Amino acid sequence: MNPDVLENVMLRSLTSGLARSPFQHNGLLESDAELIRVPGTPDLWLAATTDAVVEEIRTGLYADPRLLGWMAVMVNLSDLAAVGATPAGILIAETLKRGMSEKTVQEMQHGIDDAVRACGTYVLGGDTSIADHQQMCATALGFVRAHQPLTRRGSSAGDILYLSGPAGTGNAFALAHFTHAAPFLFFPVARVREGVLLPGRASACMDTSDGLLATLDQLCRLNGIGFELDSDWEKALDKASHAVFLGAGLPSWISLAGQHGEFELAFTIPPACEAGFLKQAAGIGWEPKRMGVATVQRGVILPIGGVPHMIDTEAIRDLATRFSGDVNGYIAGLLSTASPAK
Amino acid sequence: MNPDVLENVMLRSLTSGLARSPFQHNGLLESDAELIRVPGTPDLWLAATTDAVVEEIRTGLYADPRLLGWMAVMVNLSDLAAVGATPAGILIAETLKRGMSEKTVQEMQHGIDDAVRACGTYVLGGDTSIADHQQMCATALGFVRAHQPLTRRGSSAGDILYLSGPAGTGNAFALAHFTHAAPFLFFPVARVREGVLLPGRASACMDTSDGLLATLDQLCRLNGIGFELDSDWEKALDKASHAVFLGAGLPSWISLAGQHGEFELAFTIPPACEAGFLKQAAGIGWEPKRMGVATVQRGVILPIGGVPHMIDTEAIRDLATRFSGDVNGYIAGLLSTASPAK
Repeated sequence: MNPDVLENVMLRSLTSGLARSPFQHNGLLESDAELIRVPGTPDLWLAATTDAVVEEIRTGLYADPRLLGWMAVMVNLSDLAAVGATPAGILIAETLKRGMSEKTVQEMQHGIDDAVRACGTYVLGGDTSIADHQQMCATALGFVRAHQPLTRRGSSAGDILYLSGPAGTGNAFALAHFTHAAPFLFFPVARVREGVLLPGRASACMDTSDGLLATLDQLCRLNGIGFELDSDWEKALDKASHAVFLGAGLPSWISLAGQHGEFELAFTIPPACEAGFLKQAAGIGWEPKRMGVATVQRGVILPIGGVPHMIDTEAIRDLATRFSGDVNGYIAGLLSTASPAK
Repeated sequence: MNPDVLENVMLRSLTSGLARSPFQHNGLLESDAELIRVPGTPDLWLAATTDAVVEEIRTGLYADPRLLGWMAVMVNLSDLAAVGATPAGILIAETLKRGMSEKTVQEMQHGIDDAVRACGTYVLGGDTSIADHQQMCATALGFVRAHQPLTRRGSSAGDILYLSGPAGTGNAFALAHFTHAAPFLFFPVARVREGVLLPGRASACMDTSDGLLATLDQLCRLNGIGFELDSDWEKALDKASHAVFLGAGLPSWISLAGQHGEFELAFTIPPACEAGFLKQAAGIGWEPKRMGVATVQRGVILPIGGVPHMIDTEAIRDLATRFSGDVNGYIAGLLSTASPAK
């Protein structure tokens, strides 16, 4: 692997002059949500994360106003879920486009409302502006009680890799949209209910908002490890999503490579904790999907057609950063990232 | 006063379907920052507020990238100050305009960095996008320990009205910009240090981000009171700002009426608490400016040229909501809001 992917380099440059708070647990890029110690408490952390929906409005991917409202909330709640926080609520800064119809605004509000309700939380407040462009920026706040908070760091070789639910839905949605196939319904629910079981059990966690392989790339970099996916990893694929990829003549692993993730949680469990964790999960009717194992050797190994392939996950992330709308070129780029492992 | 100003009506409509969190102290519009009880604590509150800088980018008012970064932080820290919270940090979602120079981006980052340092706080994290427009959305987080948190509600007739510092700087800055007068330097520092003295002492507080008279309008509505300003209120005017208004041939009270506030705190102190409060303030070298008194009679009375005038503060706020760039028309509108009190 090269020193780092484009995205990380850009973020480091933007934040290079900034001091870190002594009350903040995580370093830059080390956690899906920022973790700040609540004053006067030994083990209570404020989790906070902000995300603006910009690109998906520009490309028309979230043209449905209900989906836009829903996603503005969910992308942030998913980051809270990845640190195991219980949401306290959402703040929303909405920039409405001049001349937008009352109906569109109402549908967006319904999407927001449905999303917070689906995760048992609330809109706390916000800010509204009117401009020549549309934008939606949300911030999610939550609390987590833990002596050692859960972040993206902490995985060791030998830990078992799990995914919180079926893979590929986000990329199936994006592929259907960009190839003008039959629309693929996509209203992901952030794994808040499941995430709260993870602190103290998982060694590291990150949501798959950028796709599973990009997520594994970041976990590899932060933890100095690699991942080898199980031979039967395809069992974790969402069936309807799988069909979209087959229909487009693409191999199923591309549904893990695309940059529109499924907003599941990817996390590692130390072998000694596995049985206890699975029992807790079963207790809430949750069946996380075993995907593979963390390895000493760097890089991500994925069995394709029974043959282990090494995936250039750095190239996958840089393709996403450079994506400018050429879907066929992008897919060709993704296909070229797999080569038989030596 | 009519049932409500346009801005409040719009916000109520946008949020009408949304449930409120049972852990949230304040209702809609009742507080500069949202106040959420920290779980498991009797008297600790999370204060959170979000604000997107949109309009000031469009009109060119914050064309200086250093000022843009500074203001994105300060408008939010000022909201925290108004509830007396100690900042825990800032999250920033930056939308950079495609093709923006490295130098511009760096200056914006310097503005952000200078602002957080000036208030003893930190950037905790954020999100960066690239688009065809520029936008900056920040969220400030803080904590406040209080049995009864400070909000915009709680003023009674007889309470003394104070302003945390000199009035008129924000409007002098905007007036100089829009009339192409000599630039007026404006880098306000949020009154965080002063605000923490207010919970338990002030009965209500609100920052003057929209100008003092708009702020008093909101305090009147929420508390069912009026305000009568002291005959010597002009002592509170910032001298350089005053000169900008004189230079433009405008009466000094217009510097309280314009919609670009000075980001001071306007707050009320019950008479019984006044001596104790002033002693505490003097202890940190702070001299708050007495502006007037809260009255049973609704409306805002302002002495102009020695004659008490009633100000139509509702019209002032609706002029701001409707402002579309016609500065002369806007100023003429403001001038027409004062009429001799009967």
